[in-house]
Amino acid sequence: MKKGIYLENTPLDEALKIWRKALDRVNFRQMPSEDVKVHEALGRVTAGAVFARISSPFYHSSAMDGYAVKFAETFGASESHPKTLCIPEQARYVDTGDPVPDGFTAVIMIEDVNPVQCDGGEGIEILSPATPWQHVRVIGEDIVSTELILPENHKIRPVDIGALLSGGHTEIKVRKHPRIAVIPTGTELVEPGGPLKKGDIIEYNSRILSALVTEWGGKPIRFGPVPDEPELLQQTLKKACELYDVVVINAGSSAGSEDYTAACIRALGEVVLHGVDIKPGKPVILGLVQGKPVLGIPGYPVSAYITFNLFAKKLVHALQGIEPPEPEKMTARLSRQVASSLGQEEFLRVKLGRVGGNLIATPVSRGAGVLMSLVRADGFVRVPATSEGFGAGAEVQVEMLRGKDEIEQTIVCIGSHDNALDLLANLLRREHPRFSLSSAHVGSMGGLIALRKGEAHIAGTHLLDEESGEYNVPYIKKIFGEKRMFLFNLVYREQGFMVLRGNPKNIRGFEDLTRSDICFINRQGGSGTRLLTDKHLRDRRISPQQVAGYEREEYTHMGVASAVLTGIADTGVGILAAAQALDLEFIPVAHERYDLAIPADFVELPNIAALLDIIRNSREFRGAVAALGGYDVTDMGKLLYES
Amino acid sequence: MKKGIYLENTPLDEALKIWRKALDRVNFRQMPSEDVKVHEALGRVTAGAVFARISSPFYHSSAMDGYAVKFAETFGASESHPKTLCIPEQARYVDTGDPVPDGFTAVIMIEDVNPVQCDGGEGIEILSPATPWQHVRVIGEDIVSTELILPENHKIRPVDIGALLSGGHTEIKVRKHPRIAVIPTGTELVEPGGPLKKGDIIEYNSRILSALVTEWGGKPIRFGPVPDEPELLQQTLKKACELYDVVVINAGSSAGSEDYTAACIRALGEVVLHGVDIKPGKPVILGLVQGKPVLGIPGYPVSAYITFNLFAKKLVHALQGIEPPEPEKMTARLSRQVASSLGQEEFLRVKLGRVGGNLIATPVSRGAGVLMSLVRADGFVRVPATSEGFGAGAEVQVEMLRGKDEIEQTIVCIGSHDNALDLLANLLRREHPRFSLSSAHVGSMGGLIALRKGEAHIAGTHLLDEESGEYNVPYIKKIFGEKRMFLFNLVYREQGFMVLRGNPKNIRGFEDLTRSDICFINRQGGSGTRLLTDKHLRDRRISPQQVAGYEREEYTHMGVASAVLTGIADTGVGILAAAQALDLEFIPVAHERYDLAIPADFVELPNIAALLDIIRNSREFRGAVAALGGYDVTDMGKLLYES
Repeated sequence: MKKGIYLENTPLDEALKIWRKALDRVNFRQMPSEDVKVHEALGRVTAGAVFARISSPFYHSSAMDGYAVKFAETFGASESHPKTLCIPEQARYVDTGDPVPDGFTAVIMIEDVNPVQCDGGEGIEILSPATPWQHVRVIGEDIVSTELILPENHKIRPVDIGALLSGGHTEIKVRKHPRIAVIPTGTELVEPGGPLKKGDIIEYNSRILSALVTEWGGKPIRFGPVPDEPELLQQTLKKACELYDVVVINAGSSAGSEDYTAACIRALGEVVLHGVDIKPGKPVILGLVQGKPVLGIPGYPVSAYITFNLFAKKLVHALQGIEPPEPEKMTARLSRQVASSLGQEEFLRVKLGRVGGNLIATPVSRGAGVLMSLVRADGFVRVPATSEGFGAGAEVQVEMLRGKDEIEQTIVCIGSHDNALDLLANLLRREHPRFSLSSAHVGSMGGLIALRKGEAHIAGTHLLDEESGEYNVPYIKKIFGEKRMFLFNLVYREQGFMVLRGNPKNIRGFEDLTRSDICFINRQGGSGTRLLTDKHLRDRRISPQQVAGYEREEYTHMGVASAVLTGIADTGVGILAAAQALDLEFIPVAHERYDLAIPADFVELPNIAALLDIIRNSREFRGAVAALGGYDVTDMGKLLYES
Repeated sequence: MKKGIYLENTPLDEALKIWRKALDRVNFRQMPSEDVKVHEALGRVTAGAVFARISSPFYHSSAMDGYAVKFAETFGASESHPKTLCIPEQARYVDTGDPVPDGFTAVIMIEDVNPVQCDGGEGIEILSPATPWQHVRVIGEDIVSTELILPENHKIRPVDIGALLSGGHTEIKVRKHPRIAVIPTGTELVEPGGPLKKGDIIEYNSRILSALVTEWGGKPIRFGPVPDEPELLQQTLKKACELYDVVVINAGSSAGSEDYTAACIRALGEVVLHGVDIKPGKPVILGLVQGKPVLGIPGYPVSAYITFNLFAKKLVHALQGIEPPEPEKMTARLSRQVASSLGQEEFLRVKLGRVGGNLIATPVSRGAGVLMSLVRADGFVRVPATSEGFGAGAEVQVEMLRGKDEIEQTIVCIGSHDNALDLLANLLRREHPRFSLSSAHVGSMGGLIALRKGEAHIAGTHLLDEESGEYNVPYIKKIFGEKRMFLFNLVYREQGFMVLRGNPKNIRGFEDLTRSDICFINRQGGSGTRLLTDKHLRDRRISPQQVAGYEREEYTHMGVASAVLTGIADTGVGILAAAQALDLEFIPVAHERYDLAIPADFVELPNIAALLDIIRNSREFRGAVAALGGYDVTDMGKLLYES
């Protein structure tokens, strides 16, 4: 059961069909019912139709404050010939909701009567006749006894609770919560919060899967991590199948030397399918043990999330007798080209932004291990198995992970990366919970081009023009031509070499990059930092071929810092704030200006205006940026250029 | 503080502005924070930005099952010149997730190596060189220490839980749940489930409001009903304002003799606004006591639901630092004309159905006391204060109460009412949770006309052609002309007079309707039952003027039955099933055929096909209908006519 297991390559549609058939075969059905108090039944699903036991109202009830009368006695009343009715024989005061006394057949509003004397007692004078049952809520106006209040398989909403109580129910039968066992496996797994050593993996997938089960109306039962011992895993699986409605094993679903999940399922039951042709998420296992569905979910978090949604979501809902809601969809344009393997359905994560009428989708990291790509994503684009990908500008359907209205309020910032943008994003969110700032890091030049193409609202830029020695303005003039633009300063900042504490390789300047014992890490082409690096190399007549690692590119300052910290490279160029964040040493190279470019059309938008207000006026923002280190915030928010 | 209080008529927009300003004035702000375990934080809102404490992965980790190598030692390997690497000096086996040993800089997949001898020990043969760090998840690939994981005011989703754990957090600060006191008031209120006497009102509004609070992320604290005693209410309000974040009083918000809510709020604090120009929901009170928002919510359940959504939803979200999601909207065409008062914004409840491409909105009951209208509604249409209503066919925006996908799967049945339709709706929902049957009762003729206008999928009809004595077919030929139609039998059923048990007025036939001591209740024009009634009266040469109550119309059999049971009328014509449901006596008048008319275009739709399958083949349905009494199910599902 070790090496030499080969996974199937079943297409997704077919896999879903096979799974459905397998479940039908074991007569997979809805949960049995239990009784719950109606006022505690929110979100539960009815296990049978509920009919009214009593009518509502259950007596003729006044719909107004006024006088109950007998309508026949009001005939002929008019302004010229008012009629007088005596209290209590002919008229009785009722508040809204009071029963209409027996024998009375209408209510006249308090505003429409005058108090008068009547046969020496109290009475009312009316100026118009009443119609039968006017202003009376007759018995059953809302619910007639025996009438259907809710059908079976109905998820109970707040109004339903009212209707059930009103119809005479205090307890109803609902489906029991499906109980889903979630079993993390792997000798390398450790519980969060403990001490960590190399090789440990913090076990968090089970917490994601459990939270999904909760969202879907199930009850997750999370097991402690089970080491990679086939007998132990088999025992655990057996017990879980006896006790719970669905069992999920994570991971060990691939074909590695410690992947025992498939063998365990086979030993106790049946593997229906092993391997689906999707990316990420291929090594999924669908099985049956004692008539219970067992899912082997891959270990990479993005794979786990996607496969669990594909194969468990419907199941957990079906156990309750309901369908999962369809994901919301939006049509967007891809901001850049995406290549994908033919024959494999890919789930591409994208960020979305509405820029001047266009909804723009920008792909984020495609790594199955990059959970943050899911945290940051606004939705999925499915690249069909029959497609090799999409061109830039292609129209795609996006399955939403965030609400549409949130997307509409998002500021799309594409361009150079600066740590101050994270602080800005956070402060915007705090001050204006409905707005958010979404940043994509493609370098200064890439940002300005995205801005020109209408793919972003703002771009962070620090492009030094070699000829004039001026920052940003010459590029804006060149790229935007006649288009009206604003340029606001965000910060001045320090760029320099990042090296390990103590500077073990004694790096002092660009000349050191040519040394054979130095491995450099570069920034991507089009970034301001890359231009800065190239300028300094050219000034010193150093060619890229002389710099080991020149061709290896990172996309952010933090990426470069991380590469240095972890020994992937000896040094790279970046900002002081990034070096300080990871406790690296810093050798200054340049003091540069970092601005935000914004098309004039956008500055009045409420979300952009709120952002500019923070940049211009927030002391907290100023202080927080200064505290990052290496920043000069003197001109923060200053309009430096306007075309 | 009794009569003579007049409500304001503040337009809704203005009321919302005034409310916002009042809250600003008392410095209404977000809840303080509390620490929760990350794995229990689903749905909570971050009370501050969360940055990664550790990188993920926190060591260079193999992304594949294979061999860790030093990439420099792999240079030059090719198919013609394989290279051999010795274990363990030059190559070490690693599983996915294992740390890459110190000094090793790449991983080669297990599939790409051949086991060989090396210096008398184990080794591997490789056929191509490795690139630096290939198949290695480098430190921080997912999350770099110090990086922003979640901003402040972010509602935590399942993936966020994973990212937080992965970034080294086991506890985080989230906003405390806002605690919303819900105080029902009214001497007439009784708790559900107890014995009932005339004048009692079952208290359920507080349960609806509490469930809404729960849906919005707050914690409802529901008080027991407080009688209409101003001192007691004032004490309760005072206590609630000391303990909780928002206080809701229901009801006593109008201007009746027992409406003390406004006076109580004024005694302890300030009434910001009393009376908003909306329908239903006018008598709402917005107040402040000790800096806490206090809402006086009207007593009618529909008014309570609407005003609570308008004035409390945003508040409960704002306390958590988030915005409520915008309601989903759809554009629909009104199936019939709607008149509305100028100067008052009306919230019209509608049912929706997609019929052959058109989304059709049909208004349901407008009574503020008809909670079932909310249970049955699919959405709201707002009729602006500046509008006198909409014409039939007008395009309207609908704020959805149910999911769009549910709407798309709904079968719209308009026409005659039969109790068997309720059973059918329920069975459809049980067998196919994604489908539902929505019935509107406008009579047989109205149903066929709606069908022709493309406003319904099916119509229930029992129209007797006097000339031919045939049911339905002559009408279908006349109304649909060339259009292809199917007519399926549902049931044969008994029509007759419904009277109280013991038949106290001794009603035997239509002749009795002319008696002066008999009050009749009629069905609406265009219904099959009305046609039947009119035919019998004509046959006996009785004119409508001779029948007391002829002009009073009900829209369903149950409505007629209820009117008879509750003494509104002495008798009316309806089906045996309705009489039996309310335990009335029944004097048979006719045996009639009740069919379902379906345009040929629709019979292949999955939802209609599923419905027809139940009608044709479900023994359970047949049995349940027969058990209602008065039905002949011999021809159930039989195709009686096809054009």
